[in-house]
Amino acid sequence: MLYLSKFPFKTQKTAPKTSDNKSTSILLQAWFIRQVMAWVYTYTTLWLKVLKKIEQIVREEMNNYWAFETLMPSLSPREVWEKTGRWNSIDVMFHVPAANNKEYALNSTHEEIITPLLWEFIKSYKDLPICAYQIQNKFRNEKRAKSWLLRWREFIMKDAYSFHADNEEFMQYYEWMKQVYMNVFTKLWIAKDIYIAQADWWTFTEKYSHEFQIKLDIWEDVIFLDPKSKECFNKEVTPCTIPSPNISDDKLLERQDIEAIWIIWVEALTKAFWVAAEKSTKTMMFETDENKFIVASVRWDYDINTLKLQKIIWCKSLRLASIDKVKEMTSAEIGYAWIYNLPDNIELYIDDSAMWLTNFETWTNKTWYHSINVNFWRDLPIPERFYDFKEAKVWDKNPKTWEVYEVFKASEVGNIFPLETKFSSAFNVTFLDENNKSKTPLMWCYGIWVSRLMWVTAEYFLDEVWIAWPEQIAPFKYYFVIIWEENIDKWLKLSNILNTNSDDVIIDDRTNVWFGQKMSDAELIWIPNIIIISPKTLEKGWYEIKKRWSKENELVQFNF
Amino acid sequence: MLYLSKFPFKTQKTAPKTSDNKSTSILLQAWFIRQVMAWVYTYTTLWLKVLKKIEQIVREEMNNYWAFETLMPSLSPREVWEKTGRWNSIDVMFHVPAANNKEYALNSTHEEIITPLLWEFIKSYKDLPICAYQIQNKFRNEKRAKSWLLRWREFIMKDAYSFHADNEEFMQYYEWMKQVYMNVFTKLWIAKDIYIAQADWWTFTEKYSHEFQIKLDIWEDVIFLDPKSKECFNKEVTPCTIPSPNISDDKLLERQDIEAIWIIWVEALTKAFWVAAEKSTKTMMFETDENKFIVASVRWDYDINTLKLQKIIWCKSLRLASIDKVKEMTSAEIGYAWIYNLPDNIELYIDDSAMWLTNFETWTNKTWYHSINVNFWRDLPIPERFYDFKEAKVWDKNPKTWEVYEVFKASEVGNIFPLETKFSSAFNVTFLDENNKSKTPLMWCYGIWVSRLMWVTAEYFLDEVWIAWPEQIAPFKYYFVIIWEENIDKWLKLSNILNTNSDDVIIDDRTNVWFGQKMSDAELIWIPNIIIISPKTLEKGWYEIKKRWSKENELVQFNF
Repeated sequence: MLYLSKFPFKTQKTAPKTSDNKSTSILLQAWFIRQVMAWVYTYTTLWLKVLKKIEQIVREEMNNYWAFETLMPSLSPREVWEKTGRWNSIDVMFHVPAANNKEYALNSTHEEIITPLLWEFIKSYKDLPICAYQIQNKFRNEKRAKSWLLRWREFIMKDAYSFHADNEEFMQYYEWMKQVYMNVFTKLWIAKDIYIAQADWWTFTEKYSHEFQIKLDIWEDVIFLDPKSKECFNKEVTPCTIPSPNISDDKLLERQDIEAIWIIWVEALTKAFWVAAEKSTKTMMFETDENKFIVASVRWDYDINTLKLQKIIWCKSLRLASIDKVKEMTSAEIGYAWIYNLPDNIELYIDDSAMWLTNFETWTNKTWYHSINVNFWRDLPIPERFYDFKEAKVWDKNPKTWEVYEVFKASEVGNIFPLETKFSSAFNVTFLDENNKSKTPLMWCYGIWVSRLMWVTAEYFLDEVWIAWPEQIAPFKYYFVIIWEENIDKWLKLSNILNTNSDDVIIDDRTNVWFGQKMSDAELIWIPNIIIISPKTLEKGWYEIKKRWSKENELVQFNF
Repeated sequence: MLYLSKFPFKTQKTAPKTSDNKSTSILLQAWFIRQVMAWVYTYTTLWLKVLKKIEQIVREEMNNYWAFETLMPSLSPREVWEKTGRWNSIDVMFHVPAANNKEYALNSTHEEIITPLLWEFIKSYKDLPICAYQIQNKFRNEKRAKSWLLRWREFIMKDAYSFHADNEEFMQYYEWMKQVYMNVFTKLWIAKDIYIAQADWWTFTEKYSHEFQIKLDIWEDVIFLDPKSKECFNKEVTPCTIPSPNISDDKLLERQDIEAIWIIWVEALTKAFWVAAEKSTKTMMFETDENKFIVASVRWDYDINTLKLQKIIWCKSLRLASIDKVKEMTSAEIGYAWIYNLPDNIELYIDDSAMWLTNFETWTNKTWYHSINVNFWRDLPIPERFYDFKEAKVWDKNPKTWEVYEVFKASEVGNIFPLETKFSSAFNVTFLDENNKSKTPLMWCYGIWVSRLMWVTAEYFLDEVWIAWPEQIAPFKYYFVIIWEENIDKWLKLSNILNTNSDDVIIDDRTNVWFGQKMSDAELIWIPNIIIISPKTLEKGWYEIKKRWSKENELVQFNF
């Protein structure tokens, strides 16, 4: 029981203004948090109780599906990260200089710790699947806090890691884990706004790489949802087709090559020559990690999504080609390299947004010159195939169903990603299959952003003046408003009668605040059941209970 | 419930050899821990459950005495540490380079975080005392792991901080906190071997600076206990007097100055001239932080305890004087500077171990020369006062009671230290006293080494072949040994009848191990109640319960 008379509990009359959002203001007002520095808060007892309840929900659901809980260290030796080549490649990982000229990682993830640990338990296919998890602090050396709650340098995560004999065995496990995640979100009353979005990953099948996104105005991601098929994508991997048919002219006009000194930007160009934006193209030159030279072009009003383009080319990274490289390959200055007039041997990718263009504009691979009224077939060959590597936009359609996407903002609260054999191979983890043959197990990882979930839930249940906590994670279940001190014996008895865990009870026995203040505090911190024991009702042997969610007010007979 | 068939639970037949101690071997054997690197372990489910139970005991006891729980960040900005001048003075604190040329502290302690936080709640004397705590990871950049479990780079601590109006008010609070600590140790069944030892601290009174030490062979500290007065000291601050009266000769012999080229070490000297060790002195020259030159001398068989000496001189630090300084002050080479023949103006401190010396040996402040048969009064002045700055040894006595100390090894598991106004002043924390005058509150801090307590408890309850867990922190309360799979319904019902939290039940439903293995696993991980359901007893409607601590074996009737 938390006796308020003994605590420095001090709510504020109004929500303080902060650079953060509304729910943060209310959390400050209601004594849940206190600021340490920008984006860094200390949790008071109330906030900590919400956190522990969310942790417990996650723990119970994970345990139900045979994941076993562990606790790994936050510091780890540089050597294990060098083994997988990730010491320098995880750019958000803190490197901590230590005594004796050592360096530790302040772990932002734990594959390098869990893999050699589980190795011991994986001897035979009978030992698989196996899944271990922990609920622990993670650290990330972020350049900036990207949005108020999503990119902190220190946060609590549930991270799980599983090993599997093959994809079939994994697929069943995946369904279990999806169930675990949805059970957690159901208990937090947020399941109806959770979307399972396909995310970017290199995987045997796109089906098993997912982000769990909550639709919310505190956002980091943009989600594209097909309202019929319910297919759901993170913007960065959304396949899309343009909304309206292209404007194809009836008649092909004569091509003109025009000298246009100093007009470099398409905006200026379209203005100068009255070319419609949909009648122009945007072309970029890239080099791959294997130094292959690539030219890619989309309709002018789209952007190139390099992640999608990478998957088409099947390369690990793309960088803009250098000025020299462009000149060498196209014999034009960098601003004038465009799809028309390209040398034959160049690899050219054209997005399907440009498929039906007629009489369109393009630079012409000749410095200062561009062309209008260019046409496929007549002026440049029709490509064997048009691709989809444009960045999806509002009103775009799902190419599979031709449905217009619903587009909304969202925050990631969980994910499931394949790690394939990257870590099993690095640490030589093998098992014997049914035929006694040595095989490398497949690995998956599963994250739930526990502390982010706490902030997201606050924002999700934000009312005008308070945060209406779901029953399961409200910091306390009962708030006893005590008006008479002489009541003490009776309400202590009452709290026993309610048969609730005493950890779930706040007793407002403050003598220096009035009844009205106690009621408004109870409402502000939003305890779902407020029990009022007033002199009048007490005489008659009644107590009053105010249930927040059902909005019921009841007078209940004491039974002593 | 933990179903063993679903977990990678694998005990080992014998305890593996490790560089660590016996209990670690058993923890490895019994699937509690797995090693990540030297002195760094991952906790499996079993060990984590012990940890969480200890945390909960600490939490409940702290809450009972109105301390409120918080959670502070692990990273903090350099600026708050610069405010108190501790950025560079805490030598074990990790400094973490971060993006944008920032540096964070990876907190080894939290005074700099909690003080500005609690500031808000301290307006008037009515708001005091106030105490906040957290249970959290601490990080320390230790040069070496001093002993297997005591000096880790990463560990879990309960750290509490309180503010007080004055010493009187604090003294009552101190008694409460001592009670909290002893309640925790009582619940862990270790209270009878906990000693409250006076520790080193700069404080208004030595009474309120204590370490809670557990008598144990896994040790870091040596404790001196007065068996009658029960006064208890950490060796580093033990006041002491020599055990036997000094050998005072009847007759003063004639002093001799002897040239003793190349004899520098007292050992060689005592051998060469047949001087008894108790007839010789050991002298050292120091400079204080204010560059004062100090000469200190003890009887040869004692060492100088610089902490004790510092308190006598009342200086913050002592360093050995340089060769040049010694020569300048004593006009002798460094090896020959000794108490005899010193210039008059030198500050000389003589320990009381040398008080009754007659005909003793000393160097003579003349290179190559020393003297034997030196005597106070005749050869050098009797000092106005003899001090106590010797390092305590076995057989030494308490100077107050003249009782011979009991001496034993111990590990610190908790502490209470005064911080006076160091942090309140640095952060300008003030309050209004009863006369409406602004005052600076006094601050105390309170540590419980939570994760160390866990390892210490394992060692403390170490039997020959297992660790016999106290009921309250055993990882689980019941271990169901299932022999028939057909029993499932019945034992599930049984676990309900026991009315225990299902989190406290292990079900050994493994089908690939025999009964004997299940029993020996149950015994090895030491679950206090083993419940065996065998076909025979089941038929008769009985189950068998084996209680570890009481060593009772009972057959109990099922009641379905």
